[in-house]
Amino acid sequence: MPTPTITLGVFDSGFGGLTVLRELLPLIPGARYLYLGDTARLPYGSKSRETIARYALSSGRFLLEQGAQHLVVACNTATALALDDLKHDLPIPVTGVIAPGAAAAKAAPGSHVLVLATSATVQSGAYTRALEAQDLTATEKACPLLVPLVEEGWLDNTSETQSVTAEVLRIYLAEAQREAPHATSLLLGCTHYPLLKPLIEATLLTMNYPLQIIDSAQATALAVARTIHTEPTTQISSASFYATDSIEKFQRLGSRFLGHPLPPVELIDLGG
Amino acid sequence: MPTPTITLGVFDSGFGGLTVLRELLPLIPGARYLYLGDTARLPYGSKSRETIARYALSSGRFLLEQGAQHLVVACNTATALALDDLKHDLPIPVTGVIAPGAAAAKAAPGSHVLVLATSATVQSGAYTRALEAQDLTATEKACPLLVPLVEEGWLDNTSETQSVTAEVLRIYLAEAQREAPHATSLLLGCTHYPLLKPLIEATLLTMNYPLQIIDSAQATALAVARTIHTEPTTQISSASFYATDSIEKFQRLGSRFLGHPLPPVELIDLGG
Repeated sequence: MPTPTITLGVFDSGFGGLTVLRELLPLIPGARYLYLGDTARLPYGSKSRETIARYALSSGRFLLEQGAQHLVVACNTATALALDDLKHDLPIPVTGVIAPGAAAAKAAPGSHVLVLATSATVQSGAYTRALEAQDLTATEKACPLLVPLVEEGWLDNTSETQSVTAEVLRIYLAEAQREAPHATSLLLGCTHYPLLKPLIEATLLTMNYPLQIIDSAQATALAVARTIHTEPTTQISSASFYATDSIEKFQRLGSRFLGHPLPPVELIDLGG
Repeated sequence: MPTPTITLGVFDSGFGGLTVLRELLPLIPGARYLYLGDTARLPYGSKSRETIARYALSSGRFLLEQGAQHLVVACNTATALALDDLKHDLPIPVTGVIAPGAAAAKAAPGSHVLVLATSATVQSGAYTRALEAQDLTATEKACPLLVPLVEEGWLDNTSETQSVTAEVLRIYLAEAQREAPHATSLLLGCTHYPLLKPLIEATLLTMNYPLQIIDSAQATALAVARTIHTEPTTQISSASFYATDSIEKFQRLGSRFLGHPLPPVELIDLGG
């Protein structure tokens, strides 16, 4: 049996980062993937920089110990608040989701980017800095209800629950439109949000607010793939899943994010 | 200056427990109150029993070290999953929110109680056990979106955000009505929910679902007050506030739960 080309560690506070893993799988075939959801301590989105950095470091070190040769921080909040700490602390390449998202925004038409994200990501100002470094204008909008709506599955199960999610999106996007009427693109600044993409597109259409949607999960996977030399291979990738809590919930919700059923998830203890 | 009659420790995963403290203040005057919000590790509602018990014990021990003579677990999830551990571990009386809520339901007319709570509280079955011990029938309904809606303040700021909260309540209550059409009372099984009481009452009215609302925060404060001998006093109570993270958010949201502005909140570290 051939050995895997590379071992990639992917980490998030929960299952959201599985949207990044989903994009990575077809781009880097034959790799060994290790995914860690730090579910005991989620959500990171409402916590302070110090706390998030501490959590991110223990997650990164765990994946390093398991053999990761490249760490993907598939969590906007951890990227915004702990990427520098991770790069400083770990002896392997570390890729976050913000710089690839900003680079993808640069490639889109127009120069004013609306970023939807959690409160902590917005408060960090990391997207504004990354977009301004690309000579783009940024308007950031915190959307704290979107993660719980996605985790509750109020997307497509019945029309009335989807209407609530659509109305919440309409309220957030109308606030954003008042603030940034001339925005040209919309960056999904949270790994939960790719699941909302069809509903966001439909909502923007009814609002006459034509924004090109940029998916930072997709942009991140592409950025990682570009740094890794892959030979054509027929070898199947392997993936191991770890969580710090709520294995059952991880298994149930995770498949929604990954797009197909998960293998058994291993419970680990990072302390705290 | 007279010494306080008693030092009461009140603990929750966040600010929700302030609804219990708000009820305690007028009932036990002249006391010293210590309130701890374990905000670094919230929400407890989606975590496992082991994790919640570990968090609750470290919070309880902290308040004991600060001089608490009675611990009020002002958190439904911690009561459901860690009350026995706390009672076993701490050398002071410990009161949770579930038994007082069940006793208040017993005093209400009718015998079928609908309980609204977080997923973890519902999964624990603690309310069903407590209500069945009172010869009552229980139907528990998990409402994961209500806490984020309350924390987002979508209660009264503009009519369109309040409409979203009302629609979410209507969806949850309609599901509950299909399951328990003959329920007679509704127990608010989460310390965030007292802030939703007016909206719940209005929603029930439009649904023709006449339930008497039982507020477990109020019931718990009454239960604690009954166990404490208080002399008439003109002494002013004192209150200290501790949080494990996000002091600014605690300060901002906390006043909404307490009903008046909070004094400065002290940041503490419980590890993890």
